[in-house]
Amino acid sequence: MNSIEVCYSPALFEYHQNNDAIVVVVDVLRATSSICAAFAAGVSKIIPVKTKDEALAYKQKGYLVAAERNGLVLDFADFGNSPYNFSAENVGGKEVVYSTTNGTKTIQIAAQSKAVVIGAFSNISVLSDWLIQQHAPIIILCAGWKNKYNIEDSVFAGALTQKLLDSKQFETECDSAVSALLMWQQHAQNLSALIDQCAQRERLRKNNLDDCIDFCLTPDTCNVIPLFNGTALISAG
Amino acid sequence: MNSIEVCYSPALFEYHQNNDAIVVVVDVLRATSSICAAFAAGVSKIIPVKTKDEALAYKQKGYLVAAERNGLVLDFADFGNSPYNFSAENVGGKEVVYSTTNGTKTIQIAAQSKAVVIGAFSNISVLSDWLIQQHAPIIILCAGWKNKYNIEDSVFAGALTQKLLDSKQFETECDSAVSALLMWQQHAQNLSALIDQCAQRERLRKNNLDDCIDFCLTPDTCNVIPLFNGTALISAG
Repeated sequence: MNSIEVCYSPALFEYHQNNDAIVVVVDVLRATSSICAAFAAGVSKIIPVKTKDEALAYKQKGYLVAAERNGLVLDFADFGNSPYNFSAENVGGKEVVYSTTNGTKTIQIAAQSKAVVIGAFSNISVLSDWLIQQHAPIIILCAGWKNKYNIEDSVFAGALTQKLLDSKQFETECDSAVSALLMWQQHAQNLSALIDQCAQRERLRKNNLDDCIDFCLTPDTCNVIPLFNGTALISAG
Repeated sequence: MNSIEVCYSPALFEYHQNNDAIVVVVDVLRATSSICAAFAAGVSKIIPVKTKDEALAYKQKGYLVAAERNGLVLDFADFGNSPYNFSAENVGGKEVVYSTTNGTKTIQIAAQSKAVVIGAFSNISVLSDWLIQQHAPIIILCAGWKNKYNIEDSVFAGALTQKLLDSKQFETECDSAVSALLMWQQHAQNLSALIDQCAQRERLRKNNLDDCIDFCLTPDTCNVIPLFNGTALISAG
């Protein structure tokens, strides 16, 4: 039996860290949902960068750049963080540089792990099937909001924990995982009502960026497993 | 309206910090439950210390010392971290030096705040009444377990959030507070079953230290508000 841990914030990752584990990075609203959409649309590679300056440097070298802070597109970027930006027309066959408030930073934090993959409702089933085949401990790492806990990533962590436990290949003694699982079990049948209580839901609404919420909460629209190779996200499939 | 935030780990406190706020430190199993028991038993002062060496130095000066790590009494200490140790016979009228795995360290982290008080189920009603009278923002700071999230402190945070919101003097836009509140609302009627799923419940059971769980989950057994004055806990009442 392999273990499942859920880490509710990048700032807590050092207390969960286990270099033998596969880390699933989660930023449901919106970075990891958008990354899944990009791979489903045929992006060849996504280069996550932490700072605006790095993103700008790539832009000046001629890269296609998706970059936002606090939900808003940076002025030099080609587009922002909506999954609808990552269409086949925009990104098919291309390399994209990507920088977001929480999600892309979180990918780099986990780089020392056995593997880092991207999780969202949009790839939850294909991802959980893949994880079950790896026979390794799993850490579900929530991007949160500026190092604080958030609900949308936590409830996804619960949904993924449920699928992994259902395989009978995993167990957990992690209170965060138990709590996330209880939240998922309580709210799975009415996920939108739960998400309506999230701070991020309100942030997106204020900026008229909430048109993607339904996409971000819909399971299994993207048959992809984005994998971080140390410098870029590539398709593990 | 004043705000309520819940902070799930001492390692996240810097992201919630607000020096205008009153911080409620929570370590339900067992430090803050024991501190409430001590004040109910007439302790005159509790000096929280972070390290074993500090605790030992106080012992050598002749102080009464309660100190544990991972649930087990340190060999030089007079007693450990069970609320039953803090009886009127043991601590009545005395100053006690106290050092625990998670709880006492957490008190010191919040020292720059407007006020730091101790919360547990055992003083929840008197504490919430006092907080409502202070007209200040509230941060409920969970001690957790070695900087990780834990369930028992979170569900208490939810119970206290409920009481504060019921007063109509507070509001919250904090996902941690919303999540804690949802957990409390879901499990209030069967709190023991929830606590049976906690990692700390199992740690206490393994060390035969779980005789105090019922006490720690019972509301309003201690009519006290322990307040940190910068060096020691004293009674705010």
